[in-house]
Amino acid sequence: MKKDLKTQVKEIAVGAKNACAPLALLSTAQKNAVLEDMAFALLEKKEEILKANKIDCLAAKKESRAFIDRLSLNKARIEQMSDSLLQISRLSDPVGGVIAAWNTPNGLSIRKVRVPLGVVAIIYESRPNVTADCIGLCFKSGNSVILRGGSQALNSNLAIFNAIQRVMQKHGLPEGSINLVSSADRKAVDHLLKLNDYIDVVIPRGGEELIRKVVKTSTIPVIKHYKGICHVYVDEDADLNMAENICFNAKCQRPGVCNAMESLLVHRDVAARFLPGMLKKFKDAQVEIRGDELTRKIAKWARKATEKDYRTEFSDLILSVKVVESLDEAITRINTYGSHHSDSIVTDNNSAAEQFLKQVDSACVYLNASTRFTDGNQFGMGAEIGISTDKLHARGPMGLEELTTYKYTVYGTGQIRS
Amino acid sequence: MKKDLKTQVKEIAVGAKNACAPLALLSTAQKNAVLEDMAFALLEKKEEILKANKIDCLAAKKESRAFIDRLSLNKARIEQMSDSLLQISRLSDPVGGVIAAWNTPNGLSIRKVRVPLGVVAIIYESRPNVTADCIGLCFKSGNSVILRGGSQALNSNLAIFNAIQRVMQKHGLPEGSINLVSSADRKAVDHLLKLNDYIDVVIPRGGEELIRKVVKTSTIPVIKHYKGICHVYVDEDADLNMAENICFNAKCQRPGVCNAMESLLVHRDVAARFLPGMLKKFKDAQVEIRGDELTRKIAKWARKATEKDYRTEFSDLILSVKVVESLDEAITRINTYGSHHSDSIVTDNNSAAEQFLKQVDSACVYLNASTRFTDGNQFGMGAEIGISTDKLHARGPMGLEELTTYKYTVYGTGQIRS
Repeated sequence: MKKDLKTQVKEIAVGAKNACAPLALLSTAQKNAVLEDMAFALLEKKEEILKANKIDCLAAKKESRAFIDRLSLNKARIEQMSDSLLQISRLSDPVGGVIAAWNTPNGLSIRKVRVPLGVVAIIYESRPNVTADCIGLCFKSGNSVILRGGSQALNSNLAIFNAIQRVMQKHGLPEGSINLVSSADRKAVDHLLKLNDYIDVVIPRGGEELIRKVVKTSTIPVIKHYKGICHVYVDEDADLNMAENICFNAKCQRPGVCNAMESLLVHRDVAARFLPGMLKKFKDAQVEIRGDELTRKIAKWARKATEKDYRTEFSDLILSVKVVESLDEAITRINTYGSHHSDSIVTDNNSAAEQFLKQVDSACVYLNASTRFTDGNQFGMGAEIGISTDKLHARGPMGLEELTTYKYTVYGTGQIRS
Repeated sequence: MKKDLKTQVKEIAVGAKNACAPLALLSTAQKNAVLEDMAFALLEKKEEILKANKIDCLAAKKESRAFIDRLSLNKARIEQMSDSLLQISRLSDPVGGVIAAWNTPNGLSIRKVRVPLGVVAIIYESRPNVTADCIGLCFKSGNSVILRGGSQALNSNLAIFNAIQRVMQKHGLPEGSINLVSSADRKAVDHLLKLNDYIDVVIPRGGEELIRKVVKTSTIPVIKHYKGICHVYVDEDADLNMAENICFNAKCQRPGVCNAMESLLVHRDVAARFLPGMLKKFKDAQVEIRGDELTRKIAKWARKATEKDYRTEFSDLILSVKVVESLDEAITRINTYGSHHSDSIVTDNNSAAEQFLKQVDSACVYLNASTRFTDGNQFGMGAEIGISTDKLHARGPMGLEELTTYKYTVYGTGQIRS
């Protein structure tokens, strides 16, 4: 049995690899036509998809409300999935884009050209909308894709996948272009993660535990989307009204997401002026404050922050607060306690801003703006496959371009090396 | 003892991480001045370095001649090392370069800016020149570097390292900017490769075995420079004179390097015209031919090629040859048997060229040129740290730009998300 599963998973990976060469020849117009048909197919198969989703939801009824909410589909959500595919069809195609071009003295013409990564594997939790999104993004960027979704969404995923696979067939595209690993056996993922000869990159989408597990098992490069422990630092030269608005927005506008502020740093010279009003505003919004000693002198009701609090992604109405001695201390803290995701400074001082933007080692570093803007759509990239906290290959929001690599194409007229 | 080594290695990594923020503030002029002083220091300490190298060479006298050749330094080689540092000082600085810049509708100004990777670890074999080269490249690109060279070059590496470290001190730069792990204990590398909290990337420079070992052990992302199994495919529409020149150059000009041709593919319709002269020329140059049946009909003296031969990097005057039925077969073979390094097509047919350039999944794909041009200097990038066979982050020759990543700096005027 065990061997069978391994063979089965390998066959999927080989099929995906073999699909790469034909996919590399597709024009943008061809890909867009397929994406439009995919969008249409989801609407057409709405009832089938909802029926399958009902089975999944019934089986999951003992799960948390949040879990069931992520799992559940309805007409509006299917329409959203379909719209996403249409949106992807309208995004510009990164494949074939020339990053740089030059001639060498001996007459070679070198082009650094964007090309698909090859085979992309996505490991995700029980969120059926990810199935359609990932197929769309990978297909548009010329990659074949292997999907492994949470087992509790299997019926929903299969219904979505089958609707889209029929579109691929209709267009005469290789079956291996899109793949769903549907075995209920969890070992399937372990097998998949060892197939570095066929799979070019793995992108786990989900909680930190899932990502760590994938990193530990995989022999394939992994692009990691770890947590967001985002800071706002209110500098001594900050416009304090602006700071209050930014901090409140960064914490409260949507506290459950990765670009929300988890930790507030305030320069000691403005702490006495800034913190009382700010903390009151947070208190009124039911934000639990966990602060250092100075913070708790200002807000006696605040809890004492532990070392762990400063390293925690609360994803909730909880905020750690610390008064710092200097810009340098703020930068060091962010680089040490943060998650290299998104951090902001509020200041009117150009040299402080410059130093912060250069020295804070995060994907997105803000001056006088909320951290909540770290997002593919907000950045104008369109749909994103996630927000990379890695430094290699892709950093920050990952859109279509980040699903490509490059190659050098070199045009000669018989050149040989002397 | 074991714990001590682990602590010692960790302290090096922490020091390197802490050096990143000061390094991020250096101007190009400052870095160039330091590089020039490094170059001068190597000349100044020539005698000390040669003395240290003599100890290493004496201890290695039982090793192969090739090993001792790589290990040995002389005045000319030290001058070369010094020149390399000067050359690096003249290369343009990638740090701070703006890859893209745009404004969002709400008035945020977003810049995608090149920044150092952070801490780069280099694991290499007993080649002392790598010590100076890697320090130069990492320093110019704003990274701190941790070096671990082959133990048999330790005295030479220490002498070079100390000469350069004194320059860093003179310029008031953090000691952690450059580091040499000098413990004789091989476990030091194992400890190092687990420090993903402090080290951003590992680049192993050396044979395949070394690289595989690093990949297996490391929890830090690894950029791999695997072997080069490079192909030339002679198409049915090739200019056969040009093909002969290219193939001979790709095989014989320097057979020991990774961009030399290891496998020749010939379209069956030109095999009878092309191969007799070509193989004779190879025979005269003492190239051993390992061919398929059709090849051996033309050259009865050729050995029979095994499956393994077609997957081998000979790094020697040996060549595998195969006659193929079609362009498609050639492309599939290259993608299956090759190492995704450098492959070339010789043809006058535009559509064949286009298909080959698109479908061959290699870092460098050539039309009508020798594969021997895959090289940082030949490409005009200047010094290189290696040739990546990876697809993520860096592909092909890795120069200064490939030693950087990017971040988004976002300039606001109080924007919050609604």
